[in-house]
Amino acid sequence: MSILVVGSLALDTIETPFGSIKESPGGSAVFIAAAASYFTSPVRVVGIVGGDFPKQALAFLEERNVDLEGLEVIESGKTFRWSGRYKYDLNERDTLSTELNVFEKFDPKIPPRHCRSRWVCLGNIDPVLQRRVLDQIEKPRAVICDTMNYWIDRKNEELKTTLKRIDILILNDSEARLLSREPNLIKAGRVIRGMGPSVVIIKKGEHGALLLTENTVFSAPAFPMENIFDPTGAGDSFAGGFVGWLARTDDLAVENLKRAVVYGSTLASFCVEKFGVEGLKDLTYLQIQDRVRQFHELSRFDED
Amino acid sequence: MSILVVGSLALDTIETPFGSIKESPGGSAVFIAAAASYFTSPVRVVGIVGGDFPKQALAFLEERNVDLEGLEVIESGKTFRWSGRYKYDLNERDTLSTELNVFEKFDPKIPPRHCRSRWVCLGNIDPVLQRRVLDQIEKPRAVICDTMNYWIDRKNEELKTTLKRIDILILNDSEARLLSREPNLIKAGRVIRGMGPSVVIIKKGEHGALLLTENTVFSAPAFPMENIFDPTGAGDSFAGGFVGWLARTDDLAVENLKRAVVYGSTLASFCVEKFGVEGLKDLTYLQIQDRVRQFHELSRFDED
Repeated sequence: MSILVVGSLALDTIETPFGSIKESPGGSAVFIAAAASYFTSPVRVVGIVGGDFPKQALAFLEERNVDLEGLEVIESGKTFRWSGRYKYDLNERDTLSTELNVFEKFDPKIPPRHCRSRWVCLGNIDPVLQRRVLDQIEKPRAVICDTMNYWIDRKNEELKTTLKRIDILILNDSEARLLSREPNLIKAGRVIRGMGPSVVIIKKGEHGALLLTENTVFSAPAFPMENIFDPTGAGDSFAGGFVGWLARTDDLAVENLKRAVVYGSTLASFCVEKFGVEGLKDLTYLQIQDRVRQFHELSRFDED
Repeated sequence: MSILVVGSLALDTIETPFGSIKESPGGSAVFIAAAASYFTSPVRVVGIVGGDFPKQALAFLEERNVDLEGLEVIESGKTFRWSGRYKYDLNERDTLSTELNVFEKFDPKIPPRHCRSRWVCLGNIDPVLQRRVLDQIEKPRAVICDTMNYWIDRKNEELKTTLKRIDILILNDSEARLLSREPNLIKAGRVIRGMGPSVVIIKKGEHGALLLTENTVFSAPAFPMENIFDPTGAGDSFAGGFVGWLARTDDLAVENLKRAVVYGSTLASFCVEKFGVEGLKDLTYLQIQDRVRQFHELSRFDED
């Protein structure tokens, strides 16, 4: 079951209370593809990097059977760079700098043999580009989209036009409030569902995630982590695990969407245990299933 | 199975984005006793009011079989008053004023026939008074205690002395971080357990609650409420539902503690649907069980 991932590839410079890392390979497409690669293949990436993007980071994705045919490499250009600093409790971060570099001229071109990808996962990029991707895709089973406050603030109308073509939107709690102008998350989900997506997933960081469909509210806990080293990429890893599970099972029923949320949360929990994408390296499917079982135990109770 | 509740009785003046209410009967003991009264009897209250505390509020408790023998009424005095304003998203509030009045001289005296109460629930009051209550009690099955930032800030050492005698501590997430000086809630729970309580429950408002024991982390979702009118008393209603269920079942096993957390969350969800204690009036046990079933559905997923 094929997944097409479109998003950023970046060099991240990150400071957390536990240490810092400089120009670490990241970006939404990298985290999504790495997480999804544990569930299905082919996972295909469309994105853009400069000549300075480390070859070993691409080799890592290729070892995980990620198809990089759609990756544009501008040898003379510089890769998108992001730098941020996390606060004491890791729940908030300040962006210190953003250099778009080659990303500024990114115009996603989907290789012809990728146009019939069954699952499409649009990482956090300009909603105009997200739409340009969809224009090139033939009848996907579902389009999963991530967005963030940056686009909600700066390209609100464009984002709303894109949302009409999205099946499942993933965003965090503050973004859901911002987009819906509604503080209550259950109401916010309903407002956002009215904008297009039939399914809305609200990520709440250390508090887990909510799955909202027409008739269902599902509340997934967060994995109780004592040692979170770097939250960067957690949301993208969530999206990757989520779409990976859906592609593996080819099942959009609500009960399976719930499972997909738990698999997404599981991949996010592995991601934050190490710096950058290190947490998504060298996992086994057994490890993933074992943690899903722990998730199950975490929120299970018997009524009587 | 008897429960002894010691805490404040107050006249609350509350502003929320949805309306306001003036001098509404409240206080930790009122909410805890009202919530617990749906599970067991006798529920006994020890507290203090002035002559201005409405007789009908006391009549409401008596109708719910709450034993008020331990309630001191100072006819010539004024009842404790609190006034607060909730912000837009109802997650934060500002205290506008606090008038201790008769509460300033509160010295809890436990009526002799209440000294053998099996369950003791200490509402949010001065930790010195909480200890004075425990000095008068003979071998309770368990002591459940609620506290808040006010005492963590102002009577830290006294609170820590009290905590050594507490079995189950209930507090909210910001209070857990403040008391433990640890931003990670799982670690915070461990630090607080090291202070005495073998069980710590961290309430997270709209994000549910965590139950932390030596070997267990249980994550309870919050009930998905679209219409929260007044969060006042939610934490106390949680404590009341929690201790009520424990008293009803007389079972401190971890699996039953989980259920107690869900019953606590359920009573809190009823509380916030109306202003003041209105949400705890005229419930039926069937309604409560029905909502517990909805809680079960909310977080349930099948692994395969």
